[in-house]
Amino acid sequence: MPPAPKADRRTTVDVTALLERGRTLATPVLRAAVDRLAPPMDTVAAYHFGWIDAQGKPADGDGGKAVRPALAVLSAEVTGAAPEIGVPGAVAVELVHNFSLLHDDLMDGDEQRRHRDTVWKVHGPAQAILVGDALFALANEVLLELGTVEAGRATRRLTKASRSLIDGQAQDISYEHRDRVSVEECLEMEGNKTGALLASASSIGAVLGGADERTADTLEKYGYHLGLAFQAVDDLLGIWGDPDATGKQTWSDLRQRKKSLPVVAALAAGGPASERLGEILAADAKTSDFANFSEEEFAARAALIEEAGGREWTADEASRQHTIAIEALDAVDMPDRVRAMFTALADFVVVRKR
Amino acid sequence: MPPAPKADRRTTVDVTALLERGRTLATPVLRAAVDRLAPPMDTVAAYHFGWIDAQGKPADGDGGKAVRPALAVLSAEVTGAAPEIGVPGAVAVELVHNFSLLHDDLMDGDEQRRHRDTVWKVHGPAQAILVGDALFALANEVLLELGTVEAGRATRRLTKASRSLIDGQAQDISYEHRDRVSVEECLEMEGNKTGALLASASSIGAVLGGADERTADTLEKYGYHLGLAFQAVDDLLGIWGDPDATGKQTWSDLRQRKKSLPVVAALAAGGPASERLGEILAADAKTSDFANFSEEEFAARAALIEEAGGREWTADEASRQHTIAIEALDAVDMPDRVRAMFTALADFVVVRKR
Repeated sequence: MPPAPKADRRTTVDVTALLERGRTLATPVLRAAVDRLAPPMDTVAAYHFGWIDAQGKPADGDGGKAVRPALAVLSAEVTGAAPEIGVPGAVAVELVHNFSLLHDDLMDGDEQRRHRDTVWKVHGPAQAILVGDALFALANEVLLELGTVEAGRATRRLTKASRSLIDGQAQDISYEHRDRVSVEECLEMEGNKTGALLASASSIGAVLGGADERTADTLEKYGYHLGLAFQAVDDLLGIWGDPDATGKQTWSDLRQRKKSLPVVAALAAGGPASERLGEILAADAKTSDFANFSEEEFAARAALIEEAGGREWTADEASRQHTIAIEALDAVDMPDRVRAMFTALADFVVVRKR
Repeated sequence: MPPAPKADRRTTVDVTALLERGRTLATPVLRAAVDRLAPPMDTVAAYHFGWIDAQGKPADGDGGKAVRPALAVLSAEVTGAAPEIGVPGAVAVELVHNFSLLHDDLMDGDEQRRHRDTVWKVHGPAQAILVGDALFALANEVLLELGTVEAGRATRRLTKASRSLIDGQAQDISYEHRDRVSVEECLEMEGNKTGALLASASSIGAVLGGADERTADTLEKYGYHLGLAFQAVDDLLGIWGDPDATGKQTWSDLRQRKKSLPVVAALAAGGPASERLGEILAADAKTSDFANFSEEEFAARAALIEEAGGREWTADEASRQHTIAIEALDAVDMPDRVRAMFTALADFVVVRKR
């Protein structure tokens, strides 16, 4: 039987169920891993993941979108393995992701994450550092205790991604102190911060299932470009997102002077709005009163970014990266059903509101 | 030919040359690994290791005693392999050790390390977090890129040690907020903070050289108890050490209210000096003026610790752990020459002044 036409394949995938599958498979293993941490780190980590509140009472927190676990268990199916084979990979990727969130929130001074106070706000900077370190170590532990050759390969790839993640955060921090950042520099930073770990998530289950290097590389390519699409959407939400949906403050990225894609694209565009924006942001960088700016002042900056074309360019970029991601999959043999699920997850990433 | 008597074996080992061998083999590989870091992390790391000064000029800094690299390359020889086989292990252990120094100095607010300002003082807290993370990731990278089964086993053991290190730091921090810590709790913390990584250093070369699990476990036992001896000596130096030799402030551990071995042993000893010390430290814990205490006030506390027997108990403990470490080696076959070198390193650890 010939494969169903592309449009049909897409409509048959229930993304909510796919995300739920990843979450259902990975969460118990993730919780068991976190339970291994010595007190008080286990409690601090449980707070971070939203499993308990600041008083230690059980909570049913927002654990995030869970795109990464969904990808990791799905990628195991590329090799014909059961999705369960990808679970240690899903858990390891989630641990690395959350290690970076704990440290980045502290470095960036972010006070809110997923509608709640960040760990350093509630438990102090030392716990944020320590628990981040512990989750990072735990990620390798969860993989390496499988004791297989495949686990060694998966850990090596995840370690490479972790280093990219750290490089990306270093770039992000350095860009905040610069007047100008090029679009290329911004994309490189976002590739490191978001692309590399989504690349791991999209391939780690396959690596654990015994995929060859070429298959793993191709799935990484899908994930990397999916990550760039994801981040472009994140950058749009960081300025124009609905705070009720994102859990962040209004104009969140502008408040932090983030040189995100809409900003750098607007500055690079040229023309009156672009030039006016450049003048305003240069003045903002020098003011000590920035924290007290009104909603209107941030809204004015957002309007200029849009007028200069930064919003549209970023939306187009999300779409371009989405296309590259999906086309990358053509280089790998996999069941139509699995390919349709990868495609549906990519579609979800670019239309999400949070 | 029968083995030479124990006393003779010891006198034939030149510990300075042994430490120098580890440093000479490991440093170029360590520097090449650190050079892989993206700017500015490469510079920050080079400052931390003492290769450049705060202005970026080449420096010939004090890179530490280098006991760990010496142990790692020596342990390769247990299996009959060349010391060079242990080099990636030596580098990985050094990277983990320095990751923990970078983060611990920040968490503890320590301003000086190896006679120089700490990284967070010079380059800020974000760089201390970031570069620590990068060194931690690099440790796994250096091992896993060997691509061998042995490297996977070595990484798994090192990951376990890293988790112990983090557990130990968590205990250390929590103990600083408590009035009383038992001797057992203190030893457990020190086993985690110092024993676990010396256990890795003492076995990782052997693991890379193909040692079986029992041999690796036995070498870890040697290293763990060597670590406890090492830490007992460190705790003595942290109170009574010569600042010119240690590179730390006078009464360094007392200034930080550290519940180190001499303190907890003195508090557990009972008797008038012990009770008086307990009252004084309880009052100290409540005062906000602690940072302004005079040299004489710290000296008085040190004298009480000594009078209560804390200094002597700790020196005896160093000796006890030294004996356990050396006796552990009896369970493993190795060339006499290698055994003599392990013994000499253990002797060095307990007599050092820095």
